[in-house]
Amino acid sequence: MNFMIRVGVLGATGYAGIETVRILTKHPEVTITKLVSHSFVGKKISDVYPAFKNVCDIVCDDLDVDDIAASCDIVFTALPHGASKEVIPAIYAKGVKIVDLSGDFRYDSKEVYEQWYGEPHCAPEILEKSVYGLCEIHRDKIKDATLVGNPGCYTTCSILALYPLLKAGVVKKDNIIIDAKSGVTGAGRTEKLPYSFCECTENSKAYKIATHRHTSEIEQELGHAANDEILVSFTPHLIPQKRGILATSYANLTEDISDEEIYNIFSEFYKGEYFIRIHEPGSLPETKNVAGSNFMEIGFKVDHRLKRIVVSSVIDNLYKGAAGQAVQNMNIMMGLDEKTGIDNPGFNL
Amino acid sequence: MNFMIRVGVLGATGYAGIETVRILTKHPEVTITKLVSHSFVGKKISDVYPAFKNVCDIVCDDLDVDDIAASCDIVFTALPHGASKEVIPAIYAKGVKIVDLSGDFRYDSKEVYEQWYGEPHCAPEILEKSVYGLCEIHRDKIKDATLVGNPGCYTTCSILALYPLLKAGVVKKDNIIIDAKSGVTGAGRTEKLPYSFCECTENSKAYKIATHRHTSEIEQELGHAANDEILVSFTPHLIPQKRGILATSYANLTEDISDEEIYNIFSEFYKGEYFIRIHEPGSLPETKNVAGSNFMEIGFKVDHRLKRIVVSSVIDNLYKGAAGQAVQNMNIMMGLDEKTGIDNPGFNL
Amino acid sequence: MNFMIRVGVLGATGYAGIETVRILTKHPEVTITKLVSHSFVGKKISDVYPAFKNVCDIVCDDLDVDDIAASCDIVFTALPHGASKEVIPAIYAKGVKIVDLSGDFRYDSKEVYEQWYGEPHCAPEILEKSVYGLCEIHRDKIKDATLVGNPGCYTTCSILALYPLLKAGVVKKDNIIIDAKSGVTGAGRTEKLPYSFCECTENSKAYKIATHRHTSEIEQELGHAANDEILVSFTPHLIPQKRGILATSYANLTEDISDEEIYNIFSEFYKGEYFIRIHEPGSLPETKNVAGSNFMEIGFKVDHRLKRIVVSSVIDNLYKGAAGQAVQNMNIMMGLDEKTGIDNPGFNL
Amino acid sequence: MNFMIRVGVLGATGYAGIETVRILTKHPEVTITKLVSHSFVGKKISDVYPAFKNVCDIVCDDLDVDDIAASCDIVFTALPHGASKEVIPAIYAKGVKIVDLSGDFRYDSKEVYEQWYGEPHCAPEILEKSVYGLCEIHRDKIKDATLVGNPGCYTTCSILALYPLLKAGVVKKDNIIIDAKSGVTGAGRTEKLPYSFCECTENSKAYKIATHRHTSEIEQELGHAANDEILVSFTPHLIPQKRGILATSYANLTEDISDEEIYNIFSEFYKGEYFIRIHEPGSLPETKNVAGSNFMEIGFKVDHRLKRIVVSSVIDNLYKGAAGQAVQNMNIMMGLDEKTGIDNPGFNL
Repeated sequence: MNFMIRVGVLGATGYAGIETVRILTKHPEVTITKLVSHSFVGKKISDVYPAFKNVCDIVCDDLDVDDIAASCDIVFTALPHGASKEVIPAIYAKGVKIVDLSGDFRYDSKEVYEQWYGEPHCAPEILEKSVYGLCEIHRDKIKDATLVGNPGCYTTCSILALYPLLKAGVVKKDNIIIDAKSGVTGAGRTEKLPYSFCECTENSKAYKIATHRHTSEIEQELGHAANDEILVSFTPHLIPQKRGILATSYANLTEDISDEEIYNIFSEFYKGEYFIRIHEPGSLPETKNVAGSNFMEIGFKVDHRLKRIVVSSVIDNLYKGAAGQAVQNMNIMMGLDEKTGIDNPGFNL
Repeated sequence: MNFMIRVGVLGATGYAGIETVRILTKHPEVTITKLVSHSFVGKKISDVYPAFKNVCDIVCDDLDVDDIAASCDIVFTALPHGASKEVIPAIYAKGVKIVDLSGDFRYDSKEVYEQWYGEPHCAPEILEKSVYGLCEIHRDKIKDATLVGNPGCYTTCSILALYPLLKAGVVKKDNIIIDAKSGVTGAGRTEKLPYSFCECTENSKAYKIATHRHTSEIEQELGHAANDEILVSFTPHLIPQKRGILATSYANLTEDISDEEIYNIFSEFYKGEYFIRIHEPGSLPETKNVAGSNFMEIGFKVDHRLKRIVVSSVIDNLYKGAAGQAVQNMNIMMGLDEKTGIDNPGFNL
Repeated sequence: MNFMIRVGVLGATGYAGIETVRILTKHPEVTITKLVSHSFVGKKISDVYPAFKNVCDIVCDDLDVDDIAASCDIVFTALPHGASKEVIPAIYAKGVKIVDLSGDFRYDSKEVYEQWYGEPHCAPEILEKSVYGLCEIHRDKIKDATLVGNPGCYTTCSILALYPLLKAGVVKKDNIIIDAKSGVTGAGRTEKLPYSFCECTENSKAYKIATHRHTSEIEQELGHAANDEILVSFTPHLIPQKRGILATSYANLTEDISDEEIYNIFSEFYKGEYFIRIHEPGSLPETKNVAGSNFMEIGFKVDHRLKRIVVSSVIDNLYKGAAGQAVQNMNIMMGLDEKTGIDNPGFNL
Repeated sequence: MNFMIRVGVLGATGYAGIETVRILTKHPEVTITKLVSHSFVGKKISDVYPAFKNVCDIVCDDLDVDDIAASCDIVFTALPHGASKEVIPAIYAKGVKIVDLSGDFRYDSKEVYEQWYGEPHCAPEILEKSVYGLCEIHRDKIKDATLVGNPGCYTTCSILALYPLLKAGVVKKDNIIIDAKSGVTGAGRTEKLPYSFCECTENSKAYKIATHRHTSEIEQELGHAANDEILVSFTPHLIPQKRGILATSYANLTEDISDEEIYNIFSEFYKGEYFIRIHEPGSLPETKNVAGSNFMEIGFKVDHRLKRIVVSSVIDNLYKGAAGQAVQNMNIMMGLDEKTGIDNPGFNL
């Protein structure tokens, strides 16, 4: 007989939350036992998101830690920043496994968190035990984790594009620049005017230059790759599409190197990684090819004239950049095949 | 042990073809044994549509009827109009089951075909044996069919919206008007200028007023519902989105009737139909809620002032309007649970 | 020496208001002397809409009727429904000319207003003196008007498409159906979730079926054309583009008539009308060709099979459907060439 | 009496050509005397672009140099690359002034041209006399020019963003990176599949990394600013909007400097420049605010942590990046006020 994993989603009605629910409804090894949404208590999830009618008509509950502990083997927390403060320590104390989609548990050190978030960390002793859920990098630690800090959308797309190059020592540690473009779902379910259709369509812009919090995650992980401090320029941009992150990363080469050698470095590093597709020289990724999927694509071009490499990488911000990777983390934590429930080609069209 | 159904897709690299492939890659009861694409012989399907890399890397073949007969239990034919002429009779002769996505086998009588297509029918004797694959209406006949003519995108959305009302006799048979809006994927994979981004975005238009071929399918089926000749005004429109059909249908009421009574007529008619969602009075469908799914939504409003009913219905033109319904037909023909492989909530965002 | 007309815009920071400002900044015969915006008092209009920097940096004032009377020869009022109640009678009393973009002064009779707006009219004695500002129909009355009720966006596109046919008596008076699709700017500057980019893009829907207030304006004017009561089904839809209204109108023919005869009826009726473009049989309008301009396009198709005509008409909802027609009204009221400042080809791309 | 300047547009039916026509139709000092389009000889420009009906119904001619010389004081050449080879020398020889929108006459030296275009220059002796039409930089030379090479769309947005900083010596000459995003009109009027609506919408990608020809224009001009060789990484991207270029430029600072000091450098350099808007620290540009206008916006952020500056700049690729700047060049060449006919706020919405 087949025991299903009992899962809960907290913050189920935000965009990252509902994308998690969407994936879980078709995951063959889980049953959703709890959906929590403070704003929609008592309403069916399919009343909030009508696409779910007949597929998932679970009623949203308010938060009740005891109830969650009794009904869930693992929970996804996709709560607004701040709201997770009290909830996660309480759930953690009950021994329930957690994949947290907030920024709170993504750091090696609370100092870095406090520097970028400008406030003391809510639960430093739990932070110490948490694991950064970048699956392709930290798979072994994730296996045994109780609490995983699921990476940000920009960070996944940026780190995985540069990690192999820094690890291989073929790029210099300074002058790394990451120019990232995001679809509008990255801003979440919001009523603010700048995210209205008429203000967003036919428009693009940079924002939070030099100050976006995801910079700190990127620097932490690229620092591991380089075994040294890495500081990067990270610039997020908003572009008029729903899903997709396109990151263009620039790094100076330590020595002249061919496109083929770079291709081999990427291929070797990501050997056996189902969700990472490396483009051969001459080909470049497009966001539409990963929309709705857990795949990441990486292409690049060596600029011999300038002894510089430009890496182009794409993910779906809601999927590999949030909910899909969260489920990938769950699969690893629960001992399932990592691809279970997320090995689809996405929307394609 | 589990025997998998062996399926082929002919015309796999058109938009309807590739959407069929997309669904089949995750269908738990089938294995794709053959992809045919005249334009891409020898290329992997994932080289044409990179979203499929790692998920489906099958190489496209040229058409070979013997080969198809040997390797497939059932085929989906998504060939350009005209190309199916010789292919389908040949495959049919081999006893392979067929779901045809062209317009050729959707008619009760070759006369109607010839009137709207302006040419003699290629295989009238096979046409006679074919079944019109509108699952919710012709399920019983589809079960035993060898050849199913899969309905057009506009027609599915239109017929299912009006069928119950004509069947119940609550609307008059004349003055039926269907005003339908389609996303651009409905035009297929095309290089024509009017379908370029710069010409399509921020633009909408009516086309083929009073002459679109789908009109004939709609009239045929609504005629069955009414048990009388039904003639309709059908106007297709192009609107700037990829997926989705929104049909607004107008019919005069035979007598004054309440929204609740109409709701009951729809609910009763579609009782047990998983893929049909009826909106309660006061609520109306939106295309985004069916994008990427096999669901259809129907809402309506009785206009007591004018003794008229307005029905609003939505489907995804590529899914329920083409590939999804084709797989639904296959499920019925092969004796599977009709929902297998297509019971997902779609894209949602 | 050239005396410039002094104009004010009340409600300058809404979408209709700012489009009026945009047109007026390049109008050769006017000078903007007053911009009123309750929400942005003391801010430059170019701080609210940065596109105006260097072109128009006027500071927004709060409403002051005496001040307006002293500084303006004519005002455009683009106030939220309800706000115009007290303002317009007060300005009217001062003898300042007014083009009102609200729904309040578009009616021949207060009864019709009260039936559709569900409240008593604020100033029935002024309503009596107001003129409905559909320029191509009521030009003569507009010339002498002090207060013009500028038509709604849907209504302009609908009335002008059917007026000549009803006037000519070639279509029947019942069974008229108008199916209209609007871009999202039609909803105005709003923070509501359904108008957010992620909820609007790749989505379309019908709304307010059989109950939209613009129905009453259409019926009033078509009633004049027919010299009889006209009742119409009017269905508004939201489609994912910023600008543009596409109306598809259906009417039964009184007798069989050729496309050429219809073309002549339209051409004759709109003879000399610069802003009305009639498509020859076989050609149909597209919204992009009128985006950003005061033009309206009308195409049609006679369906001999059903003895019905289908008319397809397009305007830009913000321009000919609001601000452009408002300026056209001003030109007429002030004795200018009607095309002044609005005779441009629009955005084209 | 007012003599109008007689202008011709060669290549009038491409996107840059038709945008030039659009601007010229409302330019108060010119009359269009000639439209040349090889593909549409004998057709009205308004049959190719229906937005022009009633506004400009000139018939397109085939190319005839004598005819052009007789009827035009100045011509805009927006011909496909290669086609200008013979045409421009012939027109030049007749003494007609030319603003060329191709890449052929944008270079100080034919060697740079030949390196990036991979072919000998067609008319090196004319190249020597041509002037690079970046108005804000080369105004004085443009005044006396017979032939102006109108800058590329990417280059205008990039050069003007970095020129003042290099001129002031506040940024280092190496490690300059320009990451630019363009709307799809930048690809011109094309039927290629990658520019179809379904392939472009909801998609973004980098292309031609390290090899785009505009790089050479940027390096030439920034070299002038720095009075030294400047080599830059330039990466173009395609994003799903019609109009707009957003360039994000990165440069290392020579010394720590405040945002206020940078603001002063930009403000001082562009003092009196009507079309350049500098954002104060804390504010960043958006493409929608320059769509349809000749304005450029520049914002920036000093990253003290990394001693780097990030500059964000936007233009409309078809307007300031092509046709608008071309008209600006004409205004300068013909001794008109530089703003004539192009001092509008753009589309705004």
